[in-house]
Amino acid sequence: MQALPGFRDFYPLECSKRHFIFKTWRAVATRYGFTEFDGPPLEPLELYTKKSGAEIIGQLYHFKDKGDREVSLRPEMTPTFARMVAARHKDFKKPMKWFAIPQLFRYERQQKGRLREHFQFNADIVGASLPGEDAEIIALAADILREFNLTSADFQVRLSSREVWRDILTANGIPEEKHADVFGVIDKIERVAPGESEKKLLALALEPATATRILDASEIRSADALPMSHGVERLTQTLASLSAMGLGEYVTLDLRIVRGLAYYSGTVFEIFAKNSQGEPTGRAIAGGGRYDNLLLNLAGVDLPAAGFGMGDVVLGDLLEEKNLYPQNVDGPEKIFVARLSAAQETAALELVSELRRAGWAVEYSFRLAGFNKQFEQARNCGAAWAIVCDDKIQQGLLEVKDLRTRSQETVAKNALTDYLKSKKQG
Amino acid sequence: MQALPGFRDFYPLECSKRHFIFKTWRAVATRYGFTEFDGPPLEPLELYTKKSGAEIIGQLYHFKDKGDREVSLRPEMTPTFARMVAARHKDFKKPMKWFAIPQLFRYERQQKGRLREHFQFNADIVGASLPGEDAEIIALAADILREFNLTSADFQVRLSSREVWRDILTANGIPEEKHADVFGVIDKIERVAPGESEKKLLALALEPATATRILDASEIRSADALPMSHGVERLTQTLASLSAMGLGEYVTLDLRIVRGLAYYSGTVFEIFAKNSQGEPTGRAIAGGGRYDNLLLNLAGVDLPAAGFGMGDVVLGDLLEEKNLYPQNVDGPEKIFVARLSAAQETAALELVSELRRAGWAVEYSFRLAGFNKQFEQARNCGAAWAIVCDDKIQQGLLEVKDLRTRSQETVAKNALTDYLKSKKQG
Repeated sequence: MQALPGFRDFYPLECSKRHFIFKTWRAVATRYGFTEFDGPPLEPLELYTKKSGAEIIGQLYHFKDKGDREVSLRPEMTPTFARMVAARHKDFKKPMKWFAIPQLFRYERQQKGRLREHFQFNADIVGASLPGEDAEIIALAADILREFNLTSADFQVRLSSREVWRDILTANGIPEEKHADVFGVIDKIERVAPGESEKKLLALALEPATATRILDASEIRSADALPMSHGVERLTQTLASLSAMGLGEYVTLDLRIVRGLAYYSGTVFEIFAKNSQGEPTGRAIAGGGRYDNLLLNLAGVDLPAAGFGMGDVVLGDLLEEKNLYPQNVDGPEKIFVARLSAAQETAALELVSELRRAGWAVEYSFRLAGFNKQFEQARNCGAAWAIVCDDKIQQGLLEVKDLRTRSQETVAKNALTDYLKSKKQG
Repeated sequence: MQALPGFRDFYPLECSKRHFIFKTWRAVATRYGFTEFDGPPLEPLELYTKKSGAEIIGQLYHFKDKGDREVSLRPEMTPTFARMVAARHKDFKKPMKWFAIPQLFRYERQQKGRLREHFQFNADIVGASLPGEDAEIIALAADILREFNLTSADFQVRLSSREVWRDILTANGIPEEKHADVFGVIDKIERVAPGESEKKLLALALEPATATRILDASEIRSADALPMSHGVERLTQTLASLSAMGLGEYVTLDLRIVRGLAYYSGTVFEIFAKNSQGEPTGRAIAGGGRYDNLLLNLAGVDLPAAGFGMGDVVLGDLLEEKNLYPQNVDGPEKIFVARLSAAQETAALELVSELRRAGWAVEYSFRLAGFNKQFEQARNCGAAWAIVCDDKIQQGLLEVKDLRTRSQETVAKNALTDYLKSKKQG
């Protein structure tokens, strides 16, 4: 019997890599003053259809529970976040800076970097819709990647704005009810063959000249190339803040980015790994933006917000490729306690307990095996030290063997932890 | 819109309490040499029905996925553990000591201490079926509770044995095919009215005298009251090991414990909080035992194993009741960076980034607000320090205010982190 297709088993090595990612996410988010929350992995189906429309159902793990409720495994965290914020926002000072590391579930065709479940770091600010908030969100995403020792040669933040895009579409006479469809075409511009996007725009009944101007606009890479407007002013301020935070070299204006989801209202961004030519490549490592109307539409509370998500699969593949997982993800230095005969059984167990309560990771053989057998077990479990309880334990003395250097010393039991501390590596 | 009934929202305070529990579980398990693993929260339904029979379906969140597979949210971790061990046991040295902290799901009537989801610490040893392994599992459970500052006045480990019980039933002429039903009656002995258990045993077609002897046996609290046998010898050795590990005062032999699940084969135990009379009370905090045949029956691999589970709900209620959550579960000391005018905007953001990269948790106002407004925000976010960027920043000087003592000093920017470190509390 196997795990379901698209679901991962985390054996100890994979689990320790996952921990390394989670630990880094938590550490940087905490430095940025974000606080962790979580919600249920199973929610009312309506929470998702209300936000994304019925078409999302095709991607959901949804069913009817035994109480006849339509329920779904969570495909994303934002609806839960919106629900929780709406219910208790009065209990929290603004800006609220929250993060979560939910496991998310989508039934979709399997492909590299996209399973049917993944873990996703989510960070959101509920505040006042300021450029500084946008910069804070983007800086957090970039600094997380820096914390993994990824550099500006490894990744690129591509910054854009729905507000700027709305101005462009309106200036080109495209009515608002068509904006979502046009965004849908721009969002896929890099994933389709040349010429395909133009065809799709023409299929939306755009004039050929208009379609060309829209595609030309997606090539814009500098705020100077845009007529000044509220949206452009905002982008410029966001970029200035990011530069002040030392992140200028990571961020590029790139109007090909609009994000797929309907609810983004202003600043949007995606982060991509760079290939050897310095071009964005593969699936996005992270993405997000401002969604000032979602809390109102979904939960009836008028609070502007911005946030992003960063999944563990694309990131994990990149860390693997760049060899950025730490060498020793195995945990602390271990001690193995050996005993030579049944006479030392009790003393050995006492010592095991004592050392564990003093904070050491300790193992011993559950069976009174021969000396060599016990040492083999010590090496198997990766112990750095073997402490041997023999007859001398009656005089309060222990043999302490450093399994890395193979050196050995006799140490008084009551001086043991001091001795080990003085010899501890790393 | 609300969370589903029986599902919890973890707002920041609840999330930090959950973290405190998880952190303690991980720390003690690591000291015991256990390694973390995890599996999917969604598994083939067959994984559960194969082990527990079709009757478990009534408690499951199960459904048919879009690929027409019968699937279920995991109601327990042991089947996933067995599946994963069976698939790759040859890659790992024995004994394997693994733990996990899965979220588990059961559709059942809601009541105190039992929701429809909970997190459960699971630790298992795949080894050689030795009393020392049983002792290791029990010691880990007890030491976790001690780590939460619970004492022998707060909880009791109730130790029993299916092996001993099988001997008792056989000696009383009860055929093996009835054992599971009799265990079912004993398992509920404390939860039904007096006389009820006898009625249930008689309903299993036991002679009245036999039923009385079985109920009398459940009153046994000492190995001396049992005829010597392999099972009793084993219990005695387990108790001796636990005593050597300094845990004697926590453990009581108690034959009322048999555990509800069918697959336990030897030593079983449950841990309960004690009431003011020192009697076990409420729902079990933890429970487990030896299941030497499960891996063979479920996955075709003949490996003896023992393990236990400890949920976060009953434990969390106890920590709350005993006031054992740490006072400050809020994270590290925070710094708030304030600036007096737009002229210091860039310098302030530089300082924020610098401090964050040095490992400090730093907040600032996204809007250039007045001095008082910024200090209010500093207090709201729980900052210990406010660093004020004013005109003096051009000379490399900062005002550093301790928000707890209200003392204030001018500090050179390049001496700032040393200054803060020297003043850091705790």
